Amino acid sequence: MTEAVQRRPLPAAFARELAAAFGPRFTTSAAECLQHGRDESAYAPMPPDAVLYASSTEEVAQAVRLCAAHRVPVIPYGVGSSVEGHLLALRGGLSIDLSRMDQVLAVRPQDLSATAQAGCTREGLNAALRGTGFFFSVDPGANASLGGMAATAASGTNTVRYGTMRDNVLALMVVTADGSIVRTARRARKSSAGYCLTQLFAGSEGTLGIITEVTVRLHPQPEAIAAAVVCFPGVREAVETVIEAMQSGVPLARAEMLDSLTIRAINVHSRTTLTEAPTLFLEFSGSEAQVQEQSGVLRELAEAHGGGDFQWATRPEERSRLWTPRHYAYFACLQLRPGSRSLTTDACVPLSALAECIAETVEDIATSGLIAPVFGHVGDGNFHCLLLVDPASAEEAALAESLSERIVRRAIRHDGTCTGEHGVGLHKMRYLEEEHGEAAVAVMRRIKQALDPLDILNPGKVVQV
Amino acid sequence: MTEAVQRRPLPAAFARELAAAFGPRFTTSAAECLQHGRDESAYAPMPPDAVLYASSTEEVAQAVRLCAAHRVPVIPYGVGSSVEGHLLALRGGLSIDLSRMDQVLAVRPQDLSATAQAGCTREGLNAALRGTGFFFSVDPGANASLGGMAATAASGTNTVRYGTMRDNVLALMVVTADGSIVRTARRARKSSAGYCLTQLFAGSEGTLGIITEVTVRLHPQPEAIAAAVVCFPGVREAVETVIEAMQSGVPLARAEMLDSLTIRAINVHSRTTLTEAPTLFLEFSGSEAQVQEQSGVLRELAEAHGGGDFQWATRPEERSRLWTPRHYAYFACLQLRPGSRSLTTDACVPLSALAECIAETVEDIATSGLIAPVFGHVGDGNFHCLLLVDPASAEEAALAESLSERIVRRAIRHDGTCTGEHGVGLHKMRYLEEEHGEAAVAVMRRIKQALDPLDILNPGKVVQV
Repeated sequence: MTEAVQRRPLPAAFARELAAAFGPRFTTSAAECLQHGRDESAYAPMPPDAVLYASSTEEVAQAVRLCAAHRVPVIPYGVGSSVEGHLLALRGGLSIDLSRMDQVLAVRPQDLSATAQAGCTREGLNAALRGTGFFFSVDPGANASLGGMAATAASGTNTVRYGTMRDNVLALMVVTADGSIVRTARRARKSSAGYCLTQLFAGSEGTLGIITEVTVRLHPQPEAIAAAVVCFPGVREAVETVIEAMQSGVPLARAEMLDSLTIRAINVHSRTTLTEAPTLFLEFSGSEAQVQEQSGVLRELAEAHGGGDFQWATRPEERSRLWTPRHYAYFACLQLRPGSRSLTTDACVPLSALAECIAETVEDIATSGLIAPVFGHVGDGNFHCLLLVDPASAEEAALAESLSERIVRRAIRHDGTCTGEHGVGLHKMRYLEEEHGEAAVAVMRRIKQALDPLDILNPGKVVQV
Repeated sequence: MTEAVQRRPLPAAFARELAAAFGPRFTTSAAECLQHGRDESAYAPMPPDAVLYASSTEEVAQAVRLCAAHRVPVIPYGVGSSVEGHLLALRGGLSIDLSRMDQVLAVRPQDLSATAQAGCTREGLNAALRGTGFFFSVDPGANASLGGMAATAASGTNTVRYGTMRDNVLALMVVTADGSIVRTARRARKSSAGYCLTQLFAGSEGTLGIITEVTVRLHPQPEAIAAAVVCFPGVREAVETVIEAMQSGVPLARAEMLDSLTIRAINVHSRTTLTEAPTLFLEFSGSEAQVQEQSGVLRELAEAHGGGDFQWATRPEERSRLWTPRHYAYFACLQLRPGSRSLTTDACVPLSALAECIAETVEDIATSGLIAPVFGHVGDGNFHCLLLVDPASAEEAALAESLSERIVRRAIRHDGTCTGEHGVGLHKMRYLEEEHGEAAVAVMRRIKQALDPLDILNPGKVVQV
């Protein structure tokens, strides 16, 4: 599944210089290297040769300059929650661990923005915002680092209302391949001043630069929140209810569709008694009156699509109880087949194609014989299949891989994307040209070559140079 | 104000080949060249040597390939409404006029998206959307082309609610410097599949590629809209009312602040009797109940800041009557000094700095002796000063230029941008390094060199190579 490995030992002079500069924060310990050579993907670990625990942007810049001088690959590491092999050290090199750079540097309620170091997690930032009346919206499930979320253009359950990481990043601090420090933008809410470096580095997965600081938008805490769960006769009816709500301008806060198998997994894992049918987990927010109004519209739309009774929750602890099963869906699904690993797909298609695309996929899964629950952020057109495989079975891995490929191709055929929010990493590289065309990938390659001429930044990922 | 002109005559072979390929749609007529060599900026015209009226993406690609073969500069032209000298043919060359590429190619209500050729104007697109229940939101005032709006990352009065052109572009079709045709993305509402070419070409002002098709988001027409006008004792109070509304999560549809001088200009121009004081023009939209609720919050906030009585309008013709003066503010202001031209500034700062920044600017204007009304999209932190100068007076031009420079520097000092929505063009190039730093501009330059190695795409704009 991966390119032929071209590893060379870490140059001795390089290791000496890093040890001299950073003391015990630079390590070649096998255990630490191993820990930094695996993520949440199904790939076997590929450890780097060394790890540096950086404490500042200047230190990252200094380390990258040494990497450039010695032609050593360099891979940024946040919390290791990526799912496409983003951080595997294909060619060895240095992993720069940013997790100690976890400070919230500024909270500016009046500007609706905050700045944090890249290693700060989304929960860390939200903890710092407690009591301000504002929150940071992007929630990919894992307690990912802000730098990692920016680097993969992550999104998650409330994207339908508040947008993706791209929509919420105002500016980045980035160390480029020559060890320069670039601030991509100032803090105005909009700007037309030159090429949009913020969005170029966002989603570049460490291949164009290492993100060290992130300035994000904040949103006011809504006055009222209501959560609801409702089940449907089929996936199509559930999806269409959400699409019609969006067409009516209902600002849904979250709209998650879980298929029957996911619900069964949840019932077992969380000891719930949800009806095992395609189900929407919904959240509404705004003023009390707005929440009432939105809920009313959804109730009508759901009813028209054969939806069952709504379960409601408005108090925080009730909402949490109602939604917690959704938050644990991933882990619950893994337990459908204890000992299995998941190859997780990430197709995202135009809304009009979503119901059909999911329906075709569910049939495809049934034919394949694999166990593969399906759930998704249906307001975005994005859904995941967890293809559960026995890690010891090459046959199952091949079966899952070919199913994953059909899911990708189906998404592209529907004018969608191979990855809505997980990123390319290693696993989706082969689809980039199919999705974007040769000319577009050639442009990406020229950008990579221009900004990283030595190919030291997370080499072998996103685009092949 | 501009670089030394390096013009060379159009190569005869080039002109022959274009004439052969495109017949009378290729012209070297002086009148047509002149028309394509000026925009709405205060710059004197700099005409290209020839104009091509293109009718398809393939034709644009063919023309660009000829330009590359003969090293002829090529500048895209939409409707000529840019304001920073974007389309001046500094080095002559070919202007590709896209205005005949004005077709709406697809309207997809279920996907909340539409695709149009780059020469289609925003009003053209909205006309095609009539009766669908959806609209295209970005409104920069002028009836600009969608390609031009994407190329300058335009925004306008309803950005506070619906976002900028960047936020509303899903995908672009672009002809690159070698005449390749690149589609930057498919039509999913989000994607993490590789470098974000959409946002790289958006805002690149024709220097990285020529946009030939634009796929944009659509928004559902709100059920109810209410417009209001309210005046304040000072600019600060007006601005703070809007900022507090945003902090409270009120989804204002529009929030425009006009200073007393702008109101005076409007009263003269539109024969209105508005109180000559800093004034907010507001728009609320949503369901009837939401509009009621939002209006109530704004009334309270305005009152707390000394705001006067609200004038309201809800029926379309009343709203139009109430808002029309705002839409004509630019022209009304020019009439404050008949025969004058305007050097229009475009500072955009973090919200917390806006009131102070405008207040300092108003004082600065008073000291300068220039007539310069101020108005702005205060929810975005963006404001414009129209520095009205006698086009025959070099002294006034210099005075205006130095005032404009102080406004830019003040914005940058407040961690804002020299241009919130107009773009860099020729006029803001000198501030790019001050705003972004040397390292960031070096990255932009490397991108330009990588994607346009012959420097034929709108040369001499945005970044100097």
